Amino acid sequence: MSKTNPGNYFEDFNVGQILRHATPRTVSVGDASLYTALYGSRFAVQSSDAFAQGLGYERSPIDDFLVFHIVFGKTVPDISLNAVANLGYAGCRFLAPVYPGDSLSASSEVIGLKENSNGKTGVVYVRSTGVNQDGITVLDYVRWVMVRKKDPSTPTGHNNVPSLPAALEAASLGDAVPILNKDAFDWDLSGSVHMWDDYEVGETIDHVDGMTVEEAEHQMATRLYQNTAKVHFNQFTEGQGRFGRRLIYGGHVISLARALSFNGLGNAFHVAAINGGRHVAPLFAGNTVFAWSEVIDKAELPGREDVGALRLRMFATKDQPCGELPGKGEEGYDASVILDLDVWVLLPRG
Amino acid sequence: MSKTNPGNYFEDFNVGQILRHATPRTVSVGDASLYTALYGSRFAVQSSDAFAQGLGYERSPIDDFLVFHIVFGKTVPDISLNAVANLGYAGCRFLAPVYPGDSLSASSEVIGLKENSNGKTGVVYVRSTGVNQDGITVLDYVRWVMVRKKDPSTPTGHNNVPSLPAALEAASLGDAVPILNKDAFDWDLSGSVHMWDDYEVGETIDHVDGMTVEEAEHQMATRLYQNTAKVHFNQFTEGQGRFGRRLIYGGHVISLARALSFNGLGNAFHVAAINGGRHVAPLFAGNTVFAWSEVIDKAELPGREDVGALRLRMFATKDQPCGELPGKGEEGYDASVILDLDVWVLLPRG
Amino acid sequence: MSKTNPGNYFEDFNVGQILRHATPRTVSVGDASLYTALYGSRFAVQSSDAFAQGLGYERSPIDDFLVFHIVFGKTVPDISLNAVANLGYAGCRFLAPVYPGDSLSASSEVIGLKENSNGKTGVVYVRSTGVNQDGITVLDYVRWVMVRKKDPSTPTGHNNVPSLPAALEAASLGDAVPILNKDAFDWDLSGSVHMWDDYEVGETIDHVDGMTVEEAEHQMATRLYQNTAKVHFNQFTEGQGRFGRRLIYGGHVISLARALSFNGLGNAFHVAAINGGRHVAPLFAGNTVFAWSEVIDKAELPGREDVGALRLRMFATKDQPCGELPGKGEEGYDASVILDLDVWVLLPRG
Repeated sequence: MSKTNPGNYFEDFNVGQILRHATPRTVSVGDASLYTALYGSRFAVQSSDAFAQGLGYERSPIDDFLVFHIVFGKTVPDISLNAVANLGYAGCRFLAPVYPGDSLSASSEVIGLKENSNGKTGVVYVRSTGVNQDGITVLDYVRWVMVRKKDPSTPTGHNNVPSLPAALEAASLGDAVPILNKDAFDWDLSGSVHMWDDYEVGETIDHVDGMTVEEAEHQMATRLYQNTAKVHFNQFTEGQGRFGRRLIYGGHVISLARALSFNGLGNAFHVAAINGGRHVAPLFAGNTVFAWSEVIDKAELPGREDVGALRLRMFATKDQPCGELPGKGEEGYDASVILDLDVWVLLPRG
Repeated sequence: MSKTNPGNYFEDFNVGQILRHATPRTVSVGDASLYTALYGSRFAVQSSDAFAQGLGYERSPIDDFLVFHIVFGKTVPDISLNAVANLGYAGCRFLAPVYPGDSLSASSEVIGLKENSNGKTGVVYVRSTGVNQDGITVLDYVRWVMVRKKDPSTPTGHNNVPSLPAALEAASLGDAVPILNKDAFDWDLSGSVHMWDDYEVGETIDHVDGMTVEEAEHQMATRLYQNTAKVHFNQFTEGQGRFGRRLIYGGHVISLARALSFNGLGNAFHVAAINGGRHVAPLFAGNTVFAWSEVIDKAELPGREDVGALRLRMFATKDQPCGELPGKGEEGYDASVILDLDVWVLLPRG
Repeated sequence: MSKTNPGNYFEDFNVGQILRHATPRTVSVGDASLYTALYGSRFAVQSSDAFAQGLGYERSPIDDFLVFHIVFGKTVPDISLNAVANLGYAGCRFLAPVYPGDSLSASSEVIGLKENSNGKTGVVYVRSTGVNQDGITVLDYVRWVMVRKKDPSTPTGHNNVPSLPAALEAASLGDAVPILNKDAFDWDLSGSVHMWDDYEVGETIDHVDGMTVEEAEHQMATRLYQNTAKVHFNQFTEGQGRFGRRLIYGGHVISLARALSFNGLGNAFHVAAINGGRHVAPLFAGNTVFAWSEVIDKAELPGREDVGALRLRMFATKDQPCGELPGKGEEGYDASVILDLDVWVLLPRG
């Protein structure tokens, strides 16, 4: 028996199965600094302990997407090593702040299995959960991936598709944010005067700036997340593959778009939920990423006067500034679009 | 009204105006590690807590230029987003040590405004100040930038040029350095036997080594400083611009030259002041940076026997070793020169 | 007298001489994060404080090779600045755990000198030692380098070759590992079910995955170690040299191979010793590194039931997957081999 990890095939999964993932990870200020260096994020809550403490945090929490990427990375060796495609995610909630020094581990429950009609692959649905050293859940989300079967000739009969929410309810948001001491929110230091009240449903925001990605950057990011997906690191193999080059981790695009979104959404300090997302096209080193957002919903949080939620549809493009809001029309996506992301973000209320 | 930051134009500034900048930033050991990885700095005081504590510091202070870059980065969105050129800086003093965990914020006071005769631009003079979470000023400096006018046809009448010192007085230096326990200064561990007493005015030092810069490196550095100047990150736009490529942040050159200067100035552990500096020519990825220094002045500090000050004129070049001390002659700068920097550094006395 | 470091020449060394190296260095969580970002290491002990504490560590120790590279880097300016070649190392033991916050310094004793018959060079043998802020030795090892003579025409008469062990005795291993609370070892979180008992002498393991190296990555790594060897950083000079490009620090290859070896050796959480190693061929940016290992010995540790030792011969290749185990045959090394490393690693026992 080989001691290397062959990954799981479709037949290896069963509904109800729990997979406890390696490798647990203590998140540190070192990770936070690298995250800043990789994306240039400028949200004040995550940047300054003094700012965060003034609002009621213990200190600056770790960036939400850094938490997401670390938890996601752990699931790869067990869930998606033999994946043909990452099909989607849904229902991702950030449930508790993560601080430097917290140790995260992850597990996944198989919540659905559906064999494809060709017999070669099937779709695996998992709910993945990240917990800290005290057993508190900091994050959970569903994702589904198309996974190879070991034996195309033997049907599994699996035909179990879970029902998934199109979007999380506003009432379920905000657990990772303490009740804010709103008077301490300094609109100069935060970099924007626009509070939750100022945004309207239907409003669109071009985030203006562009960021070119280098191979060393996305490789360092993806290794920081201990994500082992081979397509990101191995030019020898990828050079002979479909694209002729390394594919950039989709989460790298998400973090770039989020960092760019500071310009126009500077007070959207917390990503409370990812309702869903689609990596429309691959990103490669040398491409320049741009982003724009549309406010598609707006909600108060029950019992909270301090923060409100905006639901954003955030598009990222490559080599195409977003002044004309390239998105999805009747004929499908604009050729420049690489990401179509649906998130709830929180902002202070006036 | 757009929610993205349009930056300030010349007409938006008034003498006496105070701009409080986003984003406050807690500096950490993660930032210090990245700084080491980006430049390879080897000054013992900033590298080893044990070494620093022996001398009388709480622990290793954050590198002076890392502090400078972080404070500088904060000023960009408010001061120089619509700048045509960074014209200079002067009178930069390091006033208190910054330790990991300190939270820095920055503000700028407009101290001068002079419209250019073409009516299209004007020069904005600001004194920028970095303070820590206790309100202690850690850094202040003057810089002046040429900023676009919104309306070239309407003169502002501004014609106020502040008087600026050519160099700081030695008596104003050293506040960021505790009185050193000089007996604890270990000349083996510091990497040089040369104390303040050993340097002579007029002495020149070729720092010998060269360092090639990659796109990923300067981008990570400049994002670490949360500096948003667009020319550093966006190949899509810059590829169509004047140079056809991304321009490297001038501060990256300064930090490279400073790190290279260890070879010959290993005990110049603290930059006490930047008297002035000029980015003579742009640096691009793929270029190799070299540096040399001339001692142009030497001073005791009033009441201090532990350290003395050297005023250095430090040149950096690209793709040109500095054995022949390429600098500025009667016909101007040597074609290889990219930086002409005037600093006060402190060294232990014998 | 020049104030820059000319390095030592063969005539500058004497048997018994002690060289205390600059620059002392406090290792931090920032360094650990960068190490993860550079190599993607996934050993649970070094990744999670909670995991390490459960076993009996104070917290996650710093990766063994990160400690090695930092200590090694300090020796370069004094030992190998004028080296023609690094010939080998032997007898490297990890003697105490290094934790974030520990301050390391290094010294070397000259233990042998042998002038070469051509009179131009000689071999310098040193035992280098890394100690922490409490004076506890965390690492020691022997290396030998061929160093230029200042004066080829004057023989030194040095002909003193120390005897060196081919491999360390198992009884000398394990001092850097506390007696583990084995019940706390979680085989899900560690990422492998294979304990020490499961490995057989003669067993070979293809570590499967490949990792492409970028210039920015190896430069950042080597600067993080404050290693000043010029060939790694200076394209201007190296572009005119033997290879036409920058040479990657051999230790970067070692760390890549070690990180890749997680796939197949996931519980080999500690490198207890480096018996020897050879950098068979140079690595350049753009190459993809693969690795495989052979178990060449297996030993219990006296008085310890918690962990056992495997002696591994680990090969790294460039641009050649290791399924066919490319190594050293009767006609020498396979053309793809770049590293032939002999180490003792520790794993939990069943």
